[in-house]
Amino acid sequence: MSYPEDLRALVDAELEGLGFAAHPATAGLEEAMRYSLLAGGKRVRPVLALATARALGADPARYLPAAAALELIHTYSLIHDDLPAMDDDRLRRGLPTAHVKYGEDVAILAGDGLFAEAIRRFCGQPGEPARVLAALSELAAATGVDGMVGGQYVDVIGDAGDAAALRALHGLKTGRLIAAAVGVVLTLEGVAETETIPYRRFSGELGVLFQIVDDILDVTGSDEQLGKPRGSDERHGKLTYVSLFGLERARALAAESHAKATAALDETGGESDDLRAIADYIFTRNE
Amino acid sequence: MSYPEDLRALVDAELEGLGFAAHPATAGLEEAMRYSLLAGGKRVRPVLALATARALGADPARYLPAAAALELIHTYSLIHDDLPAMDDDRLRRGLPTAHVKYGEDVAILAGDGLFAEAIRRFCGQPGEPARVLAALSELAAATGVDGMVGGQYVDVIGDAGDAAALRALHGLKTGRLIAAAVGVVLTLEGVAETETIPYRRFSGELGVLFQIVDDILDVTGSDEQLGKPRGSDERHGKLTYVSLFGLERARALAAESHAKATAALDETGGESDDLRAIADYIFTRNE
Repeated sequence: MSYPEDLRALVDAELEGLGFAAHPATAGLEEAMRYSLLAGGKRVRPVLALATARALGADPARYLPAAAALELIHTYSLIHDDLPAMDDDRLRRGLPTAHVKYGEDVAILAGDGLFAEAIRRFCGQPGEPARVLAALSELAAATGVDGMVGGQYVDVIGDAGDAAALRALHGLKTGRLIAAAVGVVLTLEGVAETETIPYRRFSGELGVLFQIVDDILDVTGSDEQLGKPRGSDERHGKLTYVSLFGLERARALAAESHAKATAALDETGGESDDLRAIADYIFTRNE
Repeated sequence: MSYPEDLRALVDAELEGLGFAAHPATAGLEEAMRYSLLAGGKRVRPVLALATARALGADPARYLPAAAALELIHTYSLIHDDLPAMDDDRLRRGLPTAHVKYGEDVAILAGDGLFAEAIRRFCGQPGEPARVLAALSELAAATGVDGMVGGQYVDVIGDAGDAAALRALHGLKTGRLIAAAVGVVLTLEGVAETETIPYRRFSGELGVLFQIVDDILDVTGSDEQLGKPRGSDERHGKLTYVSLFGLERARALAAESHAKATAALDETGGESDDLRAIADYIFTRNE
């Protein structure tokens, strides 16, 4: 099965059409936001959201506001993670990072602006207001202290000492937002709690898979494939699945995680071909 | 009339009771967030929200989640504004700024975390879901590119060349969030559009007043009163109401703005004593 390019095209068109600046004075800020937002990528999180909608028999296009919000938040997190005070990365997807191109002050504000605009867009997601609010609350939790920002904190502080801590860190830093990409659509569609269980198991496992493969690629990928210098984790002295388990065992863990994710999909009873293709892509990607 | 200390006490108790970290690994992030959040201050934005509720005949305590969200967002903006890449301020309310105390990486994440937790809290605001969603959308817009973050961008870029540009800049940077403090409660209470007009005129003028007084205090205040070195604007070569008009004219503009704000309150027909007291405080404050 191949990656759902039709859904990616929907997402790309939606992101391309977003405008942020009402005042000419803030046009430069909008430019910086769009620079990072439109730098390409597989759009895994928003495509996951749309594929979840399709699996549930809903029209994916209906969930474009929520999907865009997910990508805006992901982009904001990349901009802030790349800052000199954080990972100090100068390249991302083969391009200078936001702070290299626009300066550190504008990069911080571009991240802040993307987050605010993400929330604003999510508020415009069609649906029963109570469900939209519940889904937004889920998204905010996934990006907060008990989510993405908390995971990045543990990462920069370097407190993740063992395998359990590593898994917890990435569960927060990467996993919560990936899980939210599936979760918000389940909530928006009003899927009954018990029926959400296999979907949530799938998305939880997908976050783990994503991170293991990321750690492997940081060691095995080429600079061109990655769009940034490989070996960045090692340079930063970061604990990764590879540094902890070695390459071979990390690969075995990835295969295990992929198998668990797809097994969970079998239990959903939904039209899960696209979700399966996303899991395959995450497992086999080289970029 | 004196500042509504009973409402401030409600806000302080609410903020003091907030917990952010579920994992022990993120306790240090929570500490940094609470350090800035609980550094004191008059809590103008949340108190404004609660005073608006009272003016409308509603129970102020009902709006504590929205009020807390406003203060979390305000605190996040201060942390990011103080960063070395931005205003590079080392003191705030007489204490070392977040990045001086916890490092730049943690300070950035503390700001990001406060923003996410603010949204999460706002989602828990009691009320009709459609209204909560509309109010949250208003808040997100006030903090985004066409609001607080956009205003800060214009400020750091230094593009505000004349009086009109200066007013527009501060309308974004300071005014939108102050206006939202009143606006979200109007929306949550479902006040009819026409009845909101004098309230919105009041809050718009209050934002202008706040900034003029801020600019005056940066020149006339003592370091102890301000809790930071005075003359910061001049040092940064910023265009202010004082640099543009001189001290005397700036004072006259503040008086004019205060008169307009209180005149708008007369038209509301509500129990606006607390709102009036907040306008008086903002006009006469020396800290």
